[in-house]
Amino acid sequence: MKRIQRALEALVERIDTPAPIVLADVVQGNIDRMQAFAAQHNLDVRPHVKTHKCVEIGRRQIKAGAVGITAGNVGEAEVFAAAGFDDIFIAYPIWPAGTKGPRIRKLADTIRLRVGVDNVAAINALADAMGPEPDRLQVVIEVDCGARRSGAPAEAAGDLALAARKRGLVPVGVFTYPGHGSAGPDARKRAADDQDAALTTAVRSLTAVGITPEVVSAGSTPTVEFATNSVITEIRPGEYVFNDLNNTRLGACTEDQIALFVAGTVVSDWVPDQVILDIGTKALGREGSPEVGYGSIAGTTAVLSKLNEYHGFLPLPAGFRPGVGTVLPVVPNHVCPVVVNFEEYIVTDSTGTMLEWWPVDARGFLN
Amino acid sequence: MKRIQRALEALVERIDTPAPIVLADVVQGNIDRMQAFAAQHNLDVRPHVKTHKCVEIGRRQIKAGAVGITAGNVGEAEVFAAAGFDDIFIAYPIWPAGTKGPRIRKLADTIRLRVGVDNVAAINALADAMGPEPDRLQVVIEVDCGARRSGAPAEAAGDLALAARKRGLVPVGVFTYPGHGSAGPDARKRAADDQDAALTTAVRSLTAVGITPEVVSAGSTPTVEFATNSVITEIRPGEYVFNDLNNTRLGACTEDQIALFVAGTVVSDWVPDQVILDIGTKALGREGSPEVGYGSIAGTTAVLSKLNEYHGFLPLPAGFRPGVGTVLPVVPNHVCPVVVNFEEYIVTDSTGTMLEWWPVDARGFLN
Repeated sequence: MKRIQRALEALVERIDTPAPIVLADVVQGNIDRMQAFAAQHNLDVRPHVKTHKCVEIGRRQIKAGAVGITAGNVGEAEVFAAAGFDDIFIAYPIWPAGTKGPRIRKLADTIRLRVGVDNVAAINALADAMGPEPDRLQVVIEVDCGARRSGAPAEAAGDLALAARKRGLVPVGVFTYPGHGSAGPDARKRAADDQDAALTTAVRSLTAVGITPEVVSAGSTPTVEFATNSVITEIRPGEYVFNDLNNTRLGACTEDQIALFVAGTVVSDWVPDQVILDIGTKALGREGSPEVGYGSIAGTTAVLSKLNEYHGFLPLPAGFRPGVGTVLPVVPNHVCPVVVNFEEYIVTDSTGTMLEWWPVDARGFLN
Repeated sequence: MKRIQRALEALVERIDTPAPIVLADVVQGNIDRMQAFAAQHNLDVRPHVKTHKCVEIGRRQIKAGAVGITAGNVGEAEVFAAAGFDDIFIAYPIWPAGTKGPRIRKLADTIRLRVGVDNVAAINALADAMGPEPDRLQVVIEVDCGARRSGAPAEAAGDLALAARKRGLVPVGVFTYPGHGSAGPDARKRAADDQDAALTTAVRSLTAVGITPEVVSAGSTPTVEFATNSVITEIRPGEYVFNDLNNTRLGACTEDQIALFVAGTVVSDWVPDQVILDIGTKALGREGSPEVGYGSIAGTTAVLSKLNEYHGFLPLPAGFRPGVGTVLPVVPNHVCPVVVNFEEYIVTDSTGTMLEWWPVDARGFLN
């Protein structure tokens, strides 16, 4: 957290709060470390851009060796495609209603586009949307590995791939998301084991129907260090680029690897042993709980105990008495929902010398 | 909730999900009803635009008789001032660092601007920022009435007003926010009583130093119906324009007065007795709790039990089996954090015949 404090000290006269501050050197270190890990284990990295939604950061990920990017919806894919990204996987069970069908077709005409599917109805709708050239669209079968969210049973992967092939789409592999690995430090390895098992079953299911998967794709920042089973070819971490308190608690990053914080100003201090920061849910989201709070002040034990929309309630630990006007660095519990609240990042480095603004390009693109 | 279901049925082929849908006739009814209530009790209405951040809705509020608007930060005030709103109260204890000082001065040069203050340091900083014409800026003293957020003790109002006057600022009155009225149905009246007591004390404190307050300003949608004590001159409700499930639970609105919902599509249905909607925290925020869930499907007993960023987990009650591709209307627990996630509202009415798009003009303006 020392880097964050140093960067904020250097910047404090030049920013309006609340403001999301990014440490570019920490981001670069996070990108390089993930890439080195992947190289060591013979894995492709396809970072999920939902975390940053920022073309500049996506470019740095590609430059470091990422094979392409992962998007969470069609809008994100469009923003990055327009910026020159030519290999995008929408890791989501898309239902191509409304304008989504034509938009997917247009994207698939310009870049290498992969989309997730987990059911036959969506496969048929996607094939219909693609018109005469369904083979422009690659589909990746989503299987569940225990998160009990989206994804077919791993045993169904082969049948779904056949259904896609029958409609002229190109089934290229399988993916899953071990979301249950965020439940706690012990859950990470178990979820990664579940992921290995589900993907192994899914690959077997594909092979059984004569399809050799080109991609076997796994999540996620909390579980990625365990994703070294030989069946996996690709990892899709997102949060690693910024990291956050949740990942620190899970043991998935260190405090010095946190690359984003929100600067806020003390605006009121009438309640004894409490100050109010100008950071509420409209800046931070409501990520957290009464137990862990809603964000921490870097370099202190102080934790936001409650959020209103424009107010953060900060009980003060002994010896910490920031006055009205003091700017404090809030480290989020979960970084992804923070970035969509802002138009741009204020980008500096651990020394506070660099100062740039990077747009949150895909902010607001939700469908 | 029937209005919501009818409107969605009429629209469903024309929208991409997730999408925030606004029922213009319900909005108008909410605006008119609040205005009639205020007229009956001789109160000015100064609606808080944080809830909608939309110039078109603000215009309807003014047209119905609002004396001006309330903003939560300088950026919101700037957006509405640029759109022609000429009487704005930033009901927040502003700390004018960075660009905020010059921006406030510029606003005060163009419109009638009031800002909140609750401490002498901020009063001095605001006066410094105003340069040679501090009397262009009106300040309203914030007092606490039990929310224990921002606001001075009511007894300190007179001294703060004198401090402002000494620096050439124009103290015009007092305001408070009875945030503790959202704790439950019984809390509303109690918080409103606390509000009456604090404002009465604050007015006495002002009068004692020879200042007759021009404005005595009170919150809020949940408590407004009790804000009829004679000391209050102005109410600042925000949520009433859209309403939400929290206000329904508090008894502050009926279900038929809810004017905003988020349309989402079922994208996956593999888990027994559960479907996944394409609505997660990036559309809804994480407003709710494991007990009440994170949003309800209008016209059903189904409630989102868990949210990821792009996924809403919807356990299915008996007899409710929406298939993949079905579009469902999600009513938020708390509407304010929803609107900042989207660029525009899709606006229809209870019959689904009208179709317009209204920009969320002040989205992203957080400081």
